Amino acid sequence: MALHIKPIIKVLGLVSAIVALMMLIPAGVSVYYRETSEALAFTYVAVPVMILGFAAFKMTPAIKDHDIRMKEGFFIVGAAWIVLSVVGALPFMISGDIPRLGDAFFEVASGFSTTGSTILTDIEALAKGMAFWRSFTHWLGGMGILVLTIAIMPMLGIGGQRIMRAETTGPTMDKISFTINDSAKNLYIVYFALTVIEVVLLCLGGMNLYDSLVHSFGTMGTGGFSNYADSVGHFESGYLQMVIAVFMMLAGINFSLHYSAVKGNIRQVLKDSELRAYLAILAGSTAFIMAMLLIYKCVGDPWTAFKQSFFQVNSITTTTGYGTADFDLWPLPCRILLVALMLVGGCAGSTGGGVKVIRVIILFKIIGREIKKKLHPNAVMPIKVGGKVVAENTISAVSGFLFLYFMIIAASVFIVSFEAPDFTTAFTTVVAVISNIGPGLAAVGPTLNYAFYSQGIKIFLGLLMIAGRVEIFTVFLLFTPSYWNKNK
Amino acid sequence: MALHIKPIIKVLGLVSAIVALMMLIPAGVSVYYRETSEALAFTYVAVPVMILGFAAFKMTPAIKDHDIRMKEGFFIVGAAWIVLSVVGALPFMISGDIPRLGDAFFEVASGFSTTGSTILTDIEALAKGMAFWRSFTHWLGGMGILVLTIAIMPMLGIGGQRIMRAETTGPTMDKISFTINDSAKNLYIVYFALTVIEVVLLCLGGMNLYDSLVHSFGTMGTGGFSNYADSVGHFESGYLQMVIAVFMMLAGINFSLHYSAVKGNIRQVLKDSELRAYLAILAGSTAFIMAMLLIYKCVGDPWTAFKQSFFQVNSITTTTGYGTADFDLWPLPCRILLVALMLVGGCAGSTGGGVKVIRVIILFKIIGREIKKKLHPNAVMPIKVGGKVVAENTISAVSGFLFLYFMIIAASVFIVSFEAPDFTTAFTTVVAVISNIGPGLAAVGPTLNYAFYSQGIKIFLGLLMIAGRVEIFTVFLLFTPSYWNKNK
Repeated sequence: MALHIKPIIKVLGLVSAIVALMMLIPAGVSVYYRETSEALAFTYVAVPVMILGFAAFKMTPAIKDHDIRMKEGFFIVGAAWIVLSVVGALPFMISGDIPRLGDAFFEVASGFSTTGSTILTDIEALAKGMAFWRSFTHWLGGMGILVLTIAIMPMLGIGGQRIMRAETTGPTMDKISFTINDSAKNLYIVYFALTVIEVVLLCLGGMNLYDSLVHSFGTMGTGGFSNYADSVGHFESGYLQMVIAVFMMLAGINFSLHYSAVKGNIRQVLKDSELRAYLAILAGSTAFIMAMLLIYKCVGDPWTAFKQSFFQVNSITTTTGYGTADFDLWPLPCRILLVALMLVGGCAGSTGGGVKVIRVIILFKIIGREIKKKLHPNAVMPIKVGGKVVAENTISAVSGFLFLYFMIIAASVFIVSFEAPDFTTAFTTVVAVISNIGPGLAAVGPTLNYAFYSQGIKIFLGLLMIAGRVEIFTVFLLFTPSYWNKNK
Repeated sequence: MALHIKPIIKVLGLVSAIVALMMLIPAGVSVYYRETSEALAFTYVAVPVMILGFAAFKMTPAIKDHDIRMKEGFFIVGAAWIVLSVVGALPFMISGDIPRLGDAFFEVASGFSTTGSTILTDIEALAKGMAFWRSFTHWLGGMGILVLTIAIMPMLGIGGQRIMRAETTGPTMDKISFTINDSAKNLYIVYFALTVIEVVLLCLGGMNLYDSLVHSFGTMGTGGFSNYADSVGHFESGYLQMVIAVFMMLAGINFSLHYSAVKGNIRQVLKDSELRAYLAILAGSTAFIMAMLLIYKCVGDPWTAFKQSFFQVNSITTTTGYGTADFDLWPLPCRILLVALMLVGGCAGSTGGGVKVIRVIILFKIIGREIKKKLHPNAVMPIKVGGKVVAENTISAVSGFLFLYFMIIAASVFIVSFEAPDFTTAFTTVVAVISNIGPGLAAVGPTLNYAFYSQGIKIFLGLLMIAGRVEIFTVFLLFTPSYWNKNK
């Protein structure tokens, strides 16, 4: 059966109208800084999109429960991120700050998907309002603009379960999990509160309000856009760097755990298998890189080694991508560890990208089971995480996801290699983009940018960021024949 | 329960004695070329090993059926390859041609595992007898020295089913499959016959007998050792290059298909899903690289482009590793395609390495199933290959294998990165070694070698080659606690 078009238009209309409404905030920033052409550009986009979006929402019939099936759910999620990235790119093009479509789409997809890769060669020359909007898209994308929409939808009498299922990241299977009906609002409260706390702490450390907002958006969304060429390295204060590092770490944790912790269930939270693995990865990697930096004499003293290592490990593992040092100059084992951390990513239900820690845990359990099976071919061995049996369906979904992830990486490396100067650049471009990190190695290293790719590859990379953000299946599904042809 | 030691000693003794016996052939070559110290070195190793091995075989009690369980089977396979690589390395060390243990072990493990990576910086200076032995290990390793042993064992009244199960490569699941009892002998006949035909065809093209033998061993074992610094590129004759290319292609096909074809079941053979996929991969990759070489003007005419492309695609896909051109100078997309082909490898039941074509087929079917499941979460969808349902047990074994393969690659890249000059070198070193290719890219490119690694890393890489050869689980199992501790 064909797609139900009207409910799709209704939801996309609402989402677009909300994002257009949000655009008035950077418009205000532009007015404050007397950037006339930027303020106008935001207005030119925001007003018609709001009108059209709201009209589309109002003029389509009310959504009934069976109107949005899995099919429509996936379509809405895939299409929404693409539509929003195009809408979000228009002010850049109209104001002339980023005139070309491929560039502007790349930059905004990088924002909404919380990737943080940039095509800008001179970030500090960007208008204040535009730089604000760029970082604000991180914050909007972080917990999912769609989740925000869904949080609003029940007020409007629309059920959003199917969209939610397609949108939420990672298989959550521990006791404290993402329950759909009431939790979106709670998670937003946590997200909002953490952002406010970070802004306050940064301001207390002497950062101005504008910079604090920009970097808090980038931190909490695990995005990584900065308004400085040398990223967080611009701030020499160890205090500021450590505040950002700690908040990156917090943003990489399942937000429902934060909520549980606030509710007082701290003991239960600390028993969470994924959280424990995540913290162990961070601690182990920080210690290793710190030791390497000292052994190879990249830095002079242990405190600097700790600061750089702790910051970078948190930044990469959570897939934020901020930097305080040029890690492309670090010893090779450190760089390879960082690439591995890029692939792992944050926890399920966090704002981080990558394949998520919980899937890596299951991956190792799958391997362990097969090794044991070699010796005991007929034994039945369920896989347990946190003492609970994981359903075989979930296990094969995790396998399928990881294989698809690797295959898309392989195919994309091949495509990107037509323009990349070398293997390292091609490989880390794709990993940095699909896992929503930001910088890679070599020609896309932390002090460089993605400007040299053609407009076509930039659009492709923008789509890859979105695919990574929505955990691939959603976007990939739209290109499969069975999605379009099969009955029911 | 502990390992049964006596049957292990019995089998390892027999295998060692057979390999020591085989060493008399290169000893003869050394005598022919009047290389006294090499001839003596072979004799010094062969005679005592033959005596000790045969004594161990004779003095242990006859093997009963339950003496060799899965546990002993895996141990024998893992230990045999390591023991043989050490025994095979001794003549190099005694004669002084390759004096250090790490170097000699690397070179011989590279031979037996049919990898073809070398630490020799001046191959053409190597004594004739030694170069012959080096290539002869490819041929012995190709179809598995153990399979050879097992083919002999029934004559000696020892059943080898369990060893066979641990030894054969790849999940074979199509109709024409490797039946244990009678087929080892038939497969050896095919292997022997193809080798003889190749030698004859090369001699007819003007190659001398010595070079023909060396290159036929390297081809049929999908090894890749040559006695020339510029590998097969040494022979400018297009005829010779094409003969080798075609025989590499044949060596990458399941040998039971060759046997079926000889028996006249050609129609059924051509229906084999893995064979079709394999041929499609070869044809598509050859066409792509040929086009790229012409577009980027790497070569002047289509015939040269075809020759280089066809040769290199066959060489890499079958995991042989011979070269007629320096593919590290080719456009980046060509190099990335070659690395992908390295990972895929040959067909199950061939002499090729890699993860095997059949597993890649299953990989894609696993992905396809999970995509469909996103739309129809409750549907039961069996995976079929060649019209037959693949057991879920096989599917999870394939998943486990691929994940372990990737994880070992990741861990090994990390280890190697302590000595590799860059990311590309570290990554392709590991892929080239574990998939039994030979050359990689950058500092281990086709015109270079592995000499710069330390002795420790060389031993590690030698073990990786063996792990790749026996398809990882065997070697990996020996390091797991559950192998040593568990009851039963």
